[in-house]
Amino acid sequence: MGSTERIRNVAKRVAKWARAGHQMVVVPSAMSGETNRLLGLAKELAPSKQTTDYERELDMLASTGEQASSALLAIALQAEGLQSVSYAGWQVPIRTDSAYTKARIESIDDLRVRADLDAGKVVIVTGFQGADAMGNITTLGRGGSDTSAVAVAAAMKAQECLIYTDVDGVYTTDPRVVPQARRLHTVSFEEMLEMASMGSKVLQIRSVEFAGKYRVPLRVLSSFTPWDIDIDVEARSGTLITFEEDEHMEQAVVSGIAFNRDEAKISVLGVPDKPGIAYQILGAIAQANIDVDVIIQNLSKDGKTDFSFTVNRGDFAKAMDLLRSNVLPSLGAQDVVGDTKICKVSIVGIGMRSHVGIASKMFGVLSEEGINIQMISTSEIKTSVVIDEKYMELAVRALHKAFDLDQPAA
Amino acid sequence: MGSTERIRNVAKRVAKWARAGHQMVVVPSAMSGETNRLLGLAKELAPSKQTTDYERELDMLASTGEQASSALLAIALQAEGLQSVSYAGWQVPIRTDSAYTKARIESIDDLRVRADLDAGKVVIVTGFQGADAMGNITTLGRGGSDTSAVAVAAAMKAQECLIYTDVDGVYTTDPRVVPQARRLHTVSFEEMLEMASMGSKVLQIRSVEFAGKYRVPLRVLSSFTPWDIDIDVEARSGTLITFEEDEHMEQAVVSGIAFNRDEAKISVLGVPDKPGIAYQILGAIAQANIDVDVIIQNLSKDGKTDFSFTVNRGDFAKAMDLLRSNVLPSLGAQDVVGDTKICKVSIVGIGMRSHVGIASKMFGVLSEEGINIQMISTSEIKTSVVIDEKYMELAVRALHKAFDLDQPAA
Repeated sequence: MGSTERIRNVAKRVAKWARAGHQMVVVPSAMSGETNRLLGLAKELAPSKQTTDYERELDMLASTGEQASSALLAIALQAEGLQSVSYAGWQVPIRTDSAYTKARIESIDDLRVRADLDAGKVVIVTGFQGADAMGNITTLGRGGSDTSAVAVAAAMKAQECLIYTDVDGVYTTDPRVVPQARRLHTVSFEEMLEMASMGSKVLQIRSVEFAGKYRVPLRVLSSFTPWDIDIDVEARSGTLITFEEDEHMEQAVVSGIAFNRDEAKISVLGVPDKPGIAYQILGAIAQANIDVDVIIQNLSKDGKTDFSFTVNRGDFAKAMDLLRSNVLPSLGAQDVVGDTKICKVSIVGIGMRSHVGIASKMFGVLSEEGINIQMISTSEIKTSVVIDEKYMELAVRALHKAFDLDQPAA
Repeated sequence: MGSTERIRNVAKRVAKWARAGHQMVVVPSAMSGETNRLLGLAKELAPSKQTTDYERELDMLASTGEQASSALLAIALQAEGLQSVSYAGWQVPIRTDSAYTKARIESIDDLRVRADLDAGKVVIVTGFQGADAMGNITTLGRGGSDTSAVAVAAAMKAQECLIYTDVDGVYTTDPRVVPQARRLHTVSFEEMLEMASMGSKVLQIRSVEFAGKYRVPLRVLSSFTPWDIDIDVEARSGTLITFEEDEHMEQAVVSGIAFNRDEAKISVLGVPDKPGIAYQILGAIAQANIDVDVIIQNLSKDGKTDFSFTVNRGDFAKAMDLLRSNVLPSLGAQDVVGDTKICKVSIVGIGMRSHVGIASKMFGVLSEEGINIQMISTSEIKTSVVIDEKYMELAVRALHKAFDLDQPAA
């Protein structure tokens, strides 16, 4: 939520839904810029410290932003003539573990909220936060308000969880890369999970996982839509993330093209091909808290093999150092080489399960464009390739066209 | 607390005390301007509503200011190398009644705070707020952080409660009126209560009452003193509000001159002198929630009397209307007249108890200056007169001199 003008618009939109007879629980984010302002003050006060040194206090601090916007929204709703009450996370309570700044929700008590709903009130639940078993305030990390909203929807067994964002839905791919990209009316939970994890930044992956775990129907829609549009139009807008497979049977085989240039490739060359090498290499990486994505082991030749994987670009230098200084000597490998100029492009679609030949069509399209594939990774509903970064847009556009995503859905 | 620079200075001062071996509980106020900023946002969102319509949400909102400054102070203390933890009111818990925006503290649990102190931590308790039995956040109203500090000091049985303010202590009178006014090293609780209630705005009267109820020694001192002054000098600075009568035996009979021009005088003339007239007049005033201060009933003459009292100037018009329209006709009185151009000047001193003639000396001083006394009110430790407003400074200066307050204390 931005200015008071935006809070007022949110209130008018909520009032529209409430007057149409819906029981509403609203989970607002902080006013824009507020969280950064607060964290900036903390950094000013402790310039020589890591934020991890004072995480508990950081959560005490950061949680005030959402509490303030929740109270303000409740006041704005009362000004609209509705009864409304706001609750901080600990008041619901939303119980979390004690992992400050990235806590996980353990349980939500629906008793107090349900009583207010039954009394005709709109309930505001402060997002992004909870309290642990000792009563310390915790926050959920980036995108935490979305996660709170999904978790509350699950606890309340809500009919639908509407997530208002700065985009108007989930697209077949990024419209900035492919102007013909289309908004999907529905997308399956599994597809959304692949898209979210591959850089479609509409929703944080945690909130999607949460929705999946509790089968909460999620609708992603735009907060910039005028509050006074027809409620039936708004109810069908955006993209519905669904768990009903049936709805997809008639849909396209490939739902979207995801891409990601946040990764870097590392290859360990000339590794003696014997049991345990994957563990020796990746065990060291994991111990350093570095996430690994695509992993490839080549066919062995003359008792030697090459082992490649991708990491986040931010972890590249650390991973290279680690391998060179610790792993390479004991492993007896020839060399470690790396490449940060790569990207990952994926086709995602639940229809791929029952259609053979989708992956080979993808490889054919890339071949026609003269794009060399460096790594391949597949799952039931996606196929990813790692290619030279400079071909990313070309690959995405060619695949988007080849899989008929430029056309309106049937 | 103001900027991060001021928070850092508070942290350095607290660290100095902690390193000298004191167990410390700190109750910070909000950063300056923050509470007004938040309340301003609420008014913007509900321009047509009274703030009393959404008091619960106002407390949810306003309490975030102190929570943020408490977390920031804890972070600043950790940057100073101390262990520190902050608690919101509900976490202590500080239990209050449910009177939103002006709640009263009912109890404070010292268990959690004491455990942290014993573990060597500096504990920050968020001021101005608590939670009611239902777990709703409440705030204590104006000066609430002072009240919180005193209440926490009482619960912890603290040796002393230091209140850092924007003045460096309690003075014999307002130095802006009498440049020779001196800072008092000690003042008794009863004297402080009279001075606070008569417009010496150093401390909110509620925090003084609280200190009196639990016999918490309070020291009022300046937050502008450099944090690195010698700790023994700082420990003796400001004014100690004490409960030990002995310390005062050698002190001056009169400790200070208080004054107040926030009142207005109302006289009901020619009231038939029969039982119940005071009740008829003041009952109506009290029912309209108007506070009355000085009350005088003249000697009766020819079966008629005059009845005068003072009210806050803000309530003057309302009180006059009420008396004219409702009370005068049924009372059979001649007229109601009022005067807003008055002030009240008081001499305050616990020594007055055992010294006769103090009041008459006061009247003599005023007489010599040609100041006519309109009303007189006395208690054990103070004598107040109501006079024409234009003589206020003259009266205060003359009394300050006459009672030897210009001289350094013996």
